[in-house]
Parts: sequence; C-alpha cells; structure tokens
Amino acid sequence: MSRPQPASRDRYAKFYPLATRWADNDIYGHANNVVYYAWFDTAVNRFLIECGGMQPGLDQVVGYVVASSCDYFAPVSYPDSLELGLRIERLGSKSVSWEIGVFPADAEESCATGRFTHAFVDRPSGRSAEIPAKIRAALQTLLP
Amino acid sequence: MSRPQPASRDRYAKFYPLATRWADNDIYGHANNVVYYAWFDTAVNRFLIECGGMQPGLDQVVGYVVASSCDYFAPVSYPDSLELGLRIERLGSKSVSWEIGVFPADAEESCATGRFTHAFVDRPSGRSAEIPAKIRAALQTLLP
Amino acid sequence: MSRPQPASRDRYAKFYPLATRWADNDIYGHANNVVYYAWFDTAVNRFLIECGGMQPGLDQVVGYVVASSCDYFAPVSYPDSLELGLRIERLGSKSVSWEIGVFPADAEESCATGRFTHAFVDRPSGRSAEIPAKIRAALQTLLP
Amino acid sequence: MSRPQPASRDRYAKFYPLATRWADNDIYGHANNVVYYAWFDTAVNRFLIECGGMQPGLDQVVGYVVASSCDYFAPVSYPDSLELGLRIERLGSKSVSWEIGVFPADAEESCATGRFTHAFVDRPSGRSAEIPAKIRAALQTLLP
Repeated sequence: MSRPQPASRDRYAKFYPLATRWADNDIYGHANNVVYYAWFDTAVNRFLIECGGMQPGLDQVVGYVVASSCDYFAPVSYPDSLELGLRIERLGSKSVSWEIGVFPADAEESCATGRFTHAFVDRPSGRSAEIPAKIRAALQTLLP
Repeated sequence: MSRPQPASRDRYAKFYPLATRWADNDIYGHANNVVYYAWFDTAVNRFLIECGGMQPGLDQVVGYVVASSCDYFAPVSYPDSLELGLRIERLGSKSVSWEIGVFPADAEESCATGRFTHAFVDRPSGRSAEIPAKIRAALQTLLP
Repeated sequence: MSRPQPASRDRYAKFYPLATRWADNDIYGHANNVVYYAWFDTAVNRFLIECGGMQPGLDQVVGYVVASSCDYFAPVSYPDSLELGLRIERLGSKSVSWEIGVFPADAEESCATGRFTHAFVDRPSGRSAEIPAKIRAALQTLLP
Repeated sequence: MSRPQPASRDRYAKFYPLATRWADNDIYGHANNVVYYAWFDTAVNRFLIECGGMQPGLDQVVGYVVASSCDYFAPVSYPDSLELGLRIERLGSKSVSWEIGVFPADAEESCATGRFTHAFVDRPSGRSAEIPAKIRAALQTLLP
C-alpha cells in the first residue's frame, strides 16, 4: 500500500470554513488527532442540513457512521483558520462514503485527509434504509 | 439578587465570530451548557494571542481560570452562527475578570452571559504574578 | 463576598467516581476549566438516570441548565482519579440547584466546587413544568 | 476486502476500564463516532504513562498520531461502562501501530475496533526519532 499523500484543492467539490478552538490544541500545542473527526462531522452535517434538508432529531431515516479514518500530514493549531473540502467517494443505495480534505486557509495542499461511511438506518425499526431522496440529490452534486 | 438578564451589544467592546459545531448539540438538540465555556476560552484566548502577544506553551507567566460562571437565557443550536462580545469587568494587578456576551448572528440581545477570572501565575515557581505589560495594555482597551 | 473555599467530604450526600481523560488536559498540562462542567453533567445525569428514572430522549419533561458556575482551588490532571460529591442546594417545585464537590481520590478537601440550576421544561410546549415525581423523590435524598 | 468484524477479548493483551460521559452521547442518544478516538487516547496514554514512564509536557521524544481509524459494530451509550483492550499491531524502530478493542463491560465481543499509529518525533528538532527504551520495553509486553 502506498503511503497516503496530501491532496490539492481541485480534488474536492465543496468547501466550508472551519474555525479552530482553544480546546482543539492538546498538551503538545497542536490540534489533537481526535478533534479532526469533530471537524468532519461539522462540515458534513452542515452540508446535509443546508443542502440535503436533513433535520436532526426529526428525521426517521438517519445516517450512522460505521467506519472512519484519518491520515495526518502536517500539524495545525488554534487559532488557525481552516477550510474543509468535501468529496463523495462512493454513493450506494443505503450508504455513502465521504472524503474530507483539511486545508489551512492559505494552503494549496491538504494537511489531513479524513474518510467516513454513513450507513442509513430507519430509527423506529433499526433496519438498514435507502438514502432519502432529497439527501441523495444533494450527495450527487459532490460526486467526482 | 435580581435575576440575570440578556444584554445588548453596546455593552461589549470587541466581538469575535464563533461557528457552532455538530458536537455542541446534546441529545436535546441544543448547544450543551458545557460548550459555552469552550466558546469563551476560544474568544478570550484569541484576543490574548492576537492583541496581547500571548504565546501559549512559551510564556512564563500565564493566566489560570480560578472561577467561571454562565447564565443561559435562550437556547442556540448547531449550525447557528454566533458572535461573542468581550468586556473587562475588573482589571487588577494580578488578575482580570471577563464578561462574555453570546449573541446569535442576527440578534440584538444576548442569549447567554459568561464570566470568568484569570489569575496570573509564574509557571516555574507556581506563584502569583503581575499581568505582563503587553497583555495589560491589550486588556485596557476592553475596559468600559 | 468572602472568597470561596474548599469543602470537606461530609458536605456531600452521594459520591460518584470520575476518571479523567487525556483530552481533559490542556496545553498547560492541567484539566481545562471547561471539562469540569462535563464532569458535573456526567455525575448529575447518572444520578437522575439511576436513581430518578430519567430517560434522556424519551422524557417529556426535562431539566435545562439555566445557570452554572465553578470555583477552582487546585489543579488536577489526567490520569488522576476523582470523586464527585453531590448535594442539593435548593429544591423548588420547578427547579433544582446542585452543588458538586470535586475531590482527588485520596483527598479530604475538594479541589473545585461547581453549582448549577436545572429548570424543568415540558418539551412539546416549551413551558416551565413541575419536577416529575420520581425525580423529586430522588432529589430529596440529597437534601442536607 | 472483507468486512471488519467484532473481536473477542483474547485478542487483547491488557484492558482498562472506560467510563462513558454524558457528553459522549449525541442527538441520536448513542456515543458519537468522534469520542471513541478520545477513549483510545485515554487508554493508550495511560498505558504509556503508567507502564512506559511517559511524562507528557516533559519528554523530549513524543509520539504523534499520523493515522487513525475505527470500525463501529454496535452502538453504546452513556452511562454504559466499557473496557478497552490494547494490542500492538506492529512495532517499528520509530513508530508503533495500536489496535484497541472496545467492549461493553459484560460483553465477550467488541462493539468497535480502533487503530492508530504513533510516529515518534524529537520535539526540539522536529525530526523522526527512535522509540525511547523504556516505552519500547513496555510496548513489547503488548505484542501478540
């Protein structure tokens, strides 16, 4: 397996700004490995809410994260400003795999790449479910 | 004691934007009471870094929080955009008391008011210390 | 106003263990002021669930935090083990005020004192509500 | 690639208890995907501190996380009690790859599997560094 590499901005279809917080830094003065995943959730759910009509707490069919990963290439620190690029890696009938590129505000190359898979579930029954139509339409705009 | 009340924007000397995150919401769909304090840290330390020359991890004299409090007037939720207003309540020789107003981006009245006190300490000795001159100069710009 | 002081264990009616986490420490190597409030939520809600029958996400009447505060007397750090003591300061018909003492596992005196007030609300209507009977019965066991 | 599967306890060399917190749950009432990584940090760094003599903030050579991942098999929720099993997947001269199994306290099968790689770095120079001898000795006790 080749070693993961930084990506350029043209790999991603849509960007959101992400402001770091004081608590993102750990004792070493860099954003801790954990908080990147909180950033991913923030950008992806914002897309799903604003573009896909997702209503957390009201929707019957929701996406649960079944796998996630991140490769870290270079540290960032509060109070850096970041931009998160979104890309859909794979769009199935009941699941979607995201890739998120983390870019310092003035950088051409990403400092981290995240990936995670949402599997959609019907909350009342707990069963696997088709991606709702409005969310699917939004996801298709992010396909390569 | 009279009941705490929302404040208007003119009470605060300087504002910073604060973007909510997915993880700010708790099971009730509102920003959890805890995360307000993370927001306060983010705005106040940004001020200290950008305006007061604070260098976390390098400075010998640092401000430790010895007391904090918050009154919550109305809920906010991710993905709301907020603005945090800063005000100095009391500036001593070795401590400073902050007040932070939390405003939804389009609101004239605050939805929460936070307060906390930084006591400055010389890290090597652990002893109480004077506020460094550059930080003091910055703090004075926020006095009413 | 007299300066807040550490308290002894006999002030509190019930104790829960609280294990610190790596992310509790900030860049100064101490538990950050924010995470104490996450500890308070953890101990108080555990009491409400285990002793008061609270079912988060199902209950129609829930307690929202309308005010919180903390005095910090001495730092603690991951991987310290803590114990949180609970005490009811005031029990009204529609609200309850908690005091939480934070104790290092082997200490007689608290290293921090937290306080917060839960106001009970009927979620569907958003209106103020009486504390549910089962929760009230549990709260009464913590009164001084 | 075969689909990731739960593992049994005998796969792991050492276990630590992990108490969930109120803030671990997200709006869906389950521990959010992000907090698993905070749990991993907590268990692994506890091992490095208690068994490997790591002194965060003092050590010159430290382990930075360069990659992390998690597969989620079944949800858990606060106030569940968990146990985290540690295993070393690969021990190089300058890096170590961890596997962490997350087990509900009474379960034989894991509900999540995490993995991450620590690359050791000399902080003053920022250069890649050998794993310190005392940490290496501790890591070897976790090898399969």
